[in-house]
Amino acid sequence: MATTSVKKQLFLGRFISAPGPNDLLIQEGAVLVSSTNGQGTIEKTSWTTQNLRDALTAFAITDQDVAVFQAPPDGFFFPGFIDTHIHAPQYPNAGIFGKSTLLDWLTTYTFPLEASLGDAGPAAESTKSQGFEPLARAKTVYTKVIARTLSHGTTTASYFATISVPATNLLAQLAHTKGQRAYIGRVCMDHPDTCPDFYCDETPDQTIENATASIEYIQSLDPKGDLVAPIVTPRFAPSCQAESLARLGDLAHKHNLRIQTHIAENLNEVELVKALFPERTSYTDVYDHASLLTPRTILAHAIHLSDTEIATIRTQQSKISHCPASNSALGSGFCPVRKLLDEGIDVSLGTDVSGGYSVSMLDSVRQACLVSRQLGYVNGGDKKWNIGVVEALWLGTVGGAKCVGMEGRLGGFVEGMLWDVQEVGLSAVSNEVDGEGPVDIFGWETWEERVDKWVWNGDDRNVQRVWVGGRLVHERK
Amino acid sequence: MATTSVKKQLFLGRFISAPGPNDLLIQEGAVLVSSTNGQGTIEKTSWTTQNLRDALTAFAITDQDVAVFQAPPDGFFFPGFIDTHIHAPQYPNAGIFGKSTLLDWLTTYTFPLEASLGDAGPAAESTKSQGFEPLARAKTVYTKVIARTLSHGTTTASYFATISVPATNLLAQLAHTKGQRAYIGRVCMDHPDTCPDFYCDETPDQTIENATASIEYIQSLDPKGDLVAPIVTPRFAPSCQAESLARLGDLAHKHNLRIQTHIAENLNEVELVKALFPERTSYTDVYDHASLLTPRTILAHAIHLSDTEIATIRTQQSKISHCPASNSALGSGFCPVRKLLDEGIDVSLGTDVSGGYSVSMLDSVRQACLVSRQLGYVNGGDKKWNIGVVEALWLGTVGGAKCVGMEGRLGGFVEGMLWDVQEVGLSAVSNEVDGEGPVDIFGWETWEERVDKWVWNGDDRNVQRVWVGGRLVHERK
Repeated sequence: MATTSVKKQLFLGRFISAPGPNDLLIQEGAVLVSSTNGQGTIEKTSWTTQNLRDALTAFAITDQDVAVFQAPPDGFFFPGFIDTHIHAPQYPNAGIFGKSTLLDWLTTYTFPLEASLGDAGPAAESTKSQGFEPLARAKTVYTKVIARTLSHGTTTASYFATISVPATNLLAQLAHTKGQRAYIGRVCMDHPDTCPDFYCDETPDQTIENATASIEYIQSLDPKGDLVAPIVTPRFAPSCQAESLARLGDLAHKHNLRIQTHIAENLNEVELVKALFPERTSYTDVYDHASLLTPRTILAHAIHLSDTEIATIRTQQSKISHCPASNSALGSGFCPVRKLLDEGIDVSLGTDVSGGYSVSMLDSVRQACLVSRQLGYVNGGDKKWNIGVVEALWLGTVGGAKCVGMEGRLGGFVEGMLWDVQEVGLSAVSNEVDGEGPVDIFGWETWEERVDKWVWNGDDRNVQRVWVGGRLVHERK
Repeated sequence: MATTSVKKQLFLGRFISAPGPNDLLIQEGAVLVSSTNGQGTIEKTSWTTQNLRDALTAFAITDQDVAVFQAPPDGFFFPGFIDTHIHAPQYPNAGIFGKSTLLDWLTTYTFPLEASLGDAGPAAESTKSQGFEPLARAKTVYTKVIARTLSHGTTTASYFATISVPATNLLAQLAHTKGQRAYIGRVCMDHPDTCPDFYCDETPDQTIENATASIEYIQSLDPKGDLVAPIVTPRFAPSCQAESLARLGDLAHKHNLRIQTHIAENLNEVELVKALFPERTSYTDVYDHASLLTPRTILAHAIHLSDTEIATIRTQQSKISHCPASNSALGSGFCPVRKLLDEGIDVSLGTDVSGGYSVSMLDSVRQACLVSRQLGYVNGGDKKWNIGVVEALWLGTVGGAKCVGMEGRLGGFVEGMLWDVQEVGLSAVSNEVDGEGPVDIFGWETWEERVDKWVWNGDDRNVQRVWVGGRLVHERK
């Protein structure tokens, strides 16, 4: 893996993080990053040091030992965002969903696009007839989605790819080369009644064979799985034969792999699962019966769950990816985030591109706040449902770390944590008509208020530099 | 007024507009703009003309007669947005609202900021003691809010200012100089039980005297009121004495002035109005009794209205400004836009900065779509509530024109309409890591889909140039 860790790295300035749901930690000081097993890791921190000279003294090093990075005076370092649910192949459809809801959205917009990125089958033939080499299209799309997510400060992403093994492997290769921390899932779908003919594994045997082929390739890219790792990805219960679900559960257990899927996003989907799996007591039971609910499982959406299902998820210590932008865009409903958190379930945020319209995790942070207010309104104005800016940032960083099995390694500025970080700049307001960035700081705002302003009006223009495992992977021109 | 109309102007390329709620009109051709009463107005259109030469022939002019503007091949002209509800002095608080709801938001965040922009009173003294000249602060804030709204394509804004006459007049002057179409309201508030001591007119006499002073100044700036005009602005019923409301109604009738205020934004506010006006049958009745409901009245929010109130508003032909971002941010509820439209009431969109967090009308368009989906979900998945992209764009342009009394003069590319227009650029995706803009066009999208992409992921970077009344008022560097 390409890292730039010939020297140690010294970061100076303001460091802001959200270590707890009500805890915005604003620190000034210095952080020393060194390479451990090829990944830039926080070796030491000093929160009493105000300048380079003191930092060198504090860390007992010389300026020959380190490369120095200073946050701008009107900016700060912030933990990189962790997007726990994003469909890489759907990026070209970001914003294209019309007035659809989940099930017609899948057939109208999603399956044809995903199929067109594959290497075989009628959709690939059709893609070829339009003058595209299918994997060339996949390369264009995947290159762009990685660049875009990094540019918005997403240092870790849990990706759904497509059913195509070569295209999925290409996504893993691109993430690995570019240096984004990524869990890559070949999508498994083989239920003949619900999958389109042009986009479907043929048999459970083929499902498992293709899943295995992609897992093995991704593990060969990064044998330790520190940066890029496979994740077992049954699309969702309605797409999969019961046998395949069970065998995917076995596969995940055998290799101790992460798992990701969707659950209870939409009421019609819940009804469909009931009809397809009459022998199971609930949507959650379908996955539990297949041994797919583990502490390494990410369940996206989790809107329409019974108390019994929530209890099962808690017992199995499975994780939730809350995707507020998508839920609003497709009219899916409101995820009861407060209830899930109160039950002790780990929750994180996902953009769910392209059910969600934006690759921006900052937008997901905003939408998490907005839908929580609406859920409170719907529940008679009960303020307990409120997710504020700090808690949403916590969900997008620390919550994400918990959900991808990286708790304590990502999401903060603590010794031993990986240096997966974005540098945020905010512009002071001037009498010029055009500011550089989208956020205006008038000068009298507290730092808590500046963070609020960043969250509500910031975008990729505020993301100056991004590092993953100490490697600089994005720099704003 | 400074206009650059020595020559006629010829616009070539793609023109997109939303003349109806389900009608996205995509035209290619040429538009000739000439000055009428000092305002650039569409003299002729040609939708069969594909190039400059044909356009000159079609319009029977030579290239000496015109300045030529070509939309980029990957872009289009679009009617400028009309923001029918925005508080200019609150711009520095955009994104700062914590977990408040309307009434505590006003006292915690809003009144202190608004007061600090005035020229007199304890807040102004405090501002001075911090080293700011109060009107210097107002100038900084108002200059910025005009520049920012224009940069997002807002060609017309209906502004709430503050209670300060000099600061309100300054806002009018700046809008007039900069060339934004603006309705400017000095905020009237004089109820001693609900207004803070430091930010309150002292008596109904003072309320009317200050309102009149500002109206006269603004009319002296622009006697015809084509670009900048006063608008009578009682803050909202709870802030005003009944006598003042009645006298403001009289004032508006006497001079045939526009009126703007808030209505039924929040359930606690509705209860407060009941308590303060026990002799009136409803919130709407408070305004109706004061003769404040006219066809030139803009009522912001309109969330919690009874059927009787809706019928009164329809009868009086008053207009609604729907402010979805604000309603979600403050947990106010869901405006029943479909119901209001079905009743025949004109509805438009407002950013409601800083109850709303963004000056971007494109964000308001997005939020209008999102909250409509949620309202549909809350109503059992009934699709009738859906506001799609085209309808939301229609609300933000044609709807706005209706609500500010400019129906048929703003919102489209029709002969006789004013040239209040934004030029939108979209970038083709490339293999470069950084695109120029926030929207990626892969090339296979239809133009309807490109508009969707602009709405969902576009921002001020896509707004290349903005004209108001034919005058170029913003150009992206």
